[in-house]
Amino acid sequence: MPRRLLPQQYIDGILSGDRLILSRAITLTESRLPSDQEIAAEILQAVLPHTGFSLRVGITGVPGVGKSTFIEAFGSQITAQGKKLAVLAIDPTSQRSGGSILGDKTRMDNLSRDPLAYVRPSPTGNSLGGVTASTRQAILLCEAAGHELVLVETVGVGQSETAVRNMTDFFLLLMLAGAGDELQGIKRGIMEMADAILINKADGENTAAAKRAQADYRNALHLFPPAASGWTPEVMPCSALTGTGLPEAWQMLERYRQLTQQNGFFTRNRQDQNLSWMHETIRRELEDSFYGNPRIRQLLPDLQRAVRSGGLSSLQAARQLLDRWRKE
Amino acid sequence: MPRRLLPQQYIDGILSGDRLILSRAITLTESRLPSDQEIAAEILQAVLPHTGFSLRVGITGVPGVGKSTFIEAFGSQITAQGKKLAVLAIDPTSQRSGGSILGDKTRMDNLSRDPLAYVRPSPTGNSLGGVTASTRQAILLCEAAGHELVLVETVGVGQSETAVRNMTDFFLLLMLAGAGDELQGIKRGIMEMADAILINKADGENTAAAKRAQADYRNALHLFPPAASGWTPEVMPCSALTGTGLPEAWQMLERYRQLTQQNGFFTRNRQDQNLSWMHETIRRELEDSFYGNPRIRQLLPDLQRAVRSGGLSSLQAARQLLDRWRKE
Repeated sequence: MPRRLLPQQYIDGILSGDRLILSRAITLTESRLPSDQEIAAEILQAVLPHTGFSLRVGITGVPGVGKSTFIEAFGSQITAQGKKLAVLAIDPTSQRSGGSILGDKTRMDNLSRDPLAYVRPSPTGNSLGGVTASTRQAILLCEAAGHELVLVETVGVGQSETAVRNMTDFFLLLMLAGAGDELQGIKRGIMEMADAILINKADGENTAAAKRAQADYRNALHLFPPAASGWTPEVMPCSALTGTGLPEAWQMLERYRQLTQQNGFFTRNRQDQNLSWMHETIRRELEDSFYGNPRIRQLLPDLQRAVRSGGLSSLQAARQLLDRWRKE
Repeated sequence: MPRRLLPQQYIDGILSGDRLILSRAITLTESRLPSDQEIAAEILQAVLPHTGFSLRVGITGVPGVGKSTFIEAFGSQITAQGKKLAVLAIDPTSQRSGGSILGDKTRMDNLSRDPLAYVRPSPTGNSLGGVTASTRQAILLCEAAGHELVLVETVGVGQSETAVRNMTDFFLLLMLAGAGDELQGIKRGIMEMADAILINKADGENTAAAKRAQADYRNALHLFPPAASGWTPEVMPCSALTGTGLPEAWQMLERYRQLTQQNGFFTRNRQDQNLSWMHETIRRELEDSFYGNPRIRQLLPDLQRAVRSGGLSSLQAARQLLDRWRKE
């Protein structure tokens, strides 16, 4: 098989639901080669009319909260209904941690073998901007391949949550009972982005603690300002082990879709996300061309040191760099 | 008096605490003329060794929460101790709302007449980026002029809170008792940025409700992840009318400064802010040069429409614009 197919071969393969070709197309979106990026953009533009029909759900939670097990159990419930599911991951840190999420496919053994599920690990060795751009494209390609639910998983510790929030319809936060300790890892601001908090591992001895956590988080969310979607964030216990709460979580997603499609937020939000994506791409390219410039890269460390120490004003440093860049 | 002084005259005036010259220097930072911006940057660089000694406090809250009255009462308490206070405002919406904050100086009658207080309304007719850049400079100029406390006020409804959070040491959120209704206006995410929540108008019939609100918010904040500063956000009632809580608020700021200076966060945070400022300035200039380009301005509306409607992929639209820009 040749390393690169013709654009039309990718397009036909994706639209016919060929997973191998879908995978190879997603690999193109992860490539840093301009020629690959160009083909990827061409494929995307061609399949665009076949995108947009899935529900896109972001999932986050600190390591140890049981995200993979939850996705396995939740996802199997979806495919048992005959629906096609895609699981993507965003993890710009995985090059450092050695592929902490989805890198090890055995963590989603059942889903990986499920013919209705497509599981894609996070691209590694890439910046958050690159991972984000690739994942946005992967969502659309998965939709064109007929997946009705796209889950985008991220670890709850970094910048990637905002990125995932901005490319999905619904944002799910997994927590554990015993509010306090497990919060250590969650970044501030993430709780206010959540459309729902699921208290995971609500089984056995944990059941009572999960109930208490549910009440606590409900009270806390009640103090937050209302979301633009008109949706009131929900808090529910769940267990990947016993299956508790999994059907309810799916019903909740359906309720959310119905509400926001009726009040117009669903479409408006996606339109806004499309526009943001365009502007983000522009910003990223502008920054890449600036910070990638050899002369700038050479000057930057000294100027950063001077700014950090307070010897040079941030404004003067920026002016010096911009003047130099304009001359190049 | 000539419209522009010599740079050295601005510098000497600021360092000697001359308010009129301080005001004129801040006006330079608000100017969009490159020549003014250049002088402003030169002045800033010259006074830089005399900056950094104040405590920078951001204050937000929805209209009606009593920010101006609070700042009057709180500020008078500071100047009564012989300390110099500066009050700046960020309000990128003021051109639309007709100068909603600080525009009407009579709202801070006492402080405006107080020789130890310097009150500066928000620059109008400017973008958030411009207002932010100018306010960052104004903070430093006020410090060089000997102000020990700099309050930066913003309305709690927009993007400006993050900007203020990123240029101050401490972020204060004013709320009213009766959690719920008054939240309508506050943007999501702001509560998690707060280092303290003051329940304002805790007087007369409101006293009991303020106590309840204090308990509610304390419980809610308890569920948030800990801040990088090592500081636990505090919630306290206060009243600009009776003076309740005002000395306590000042003591809290002192406690915060002491804690974060000891654990190193205070300095580290400011160094990070300086670096961010440099990068933000660069980003803003890059974007201005892109979006200000006449050819881009001409192409943008049609492409935005196509992206919004889903006919053109965000990626293709970005590529088209960037290709055009590179050719210019």
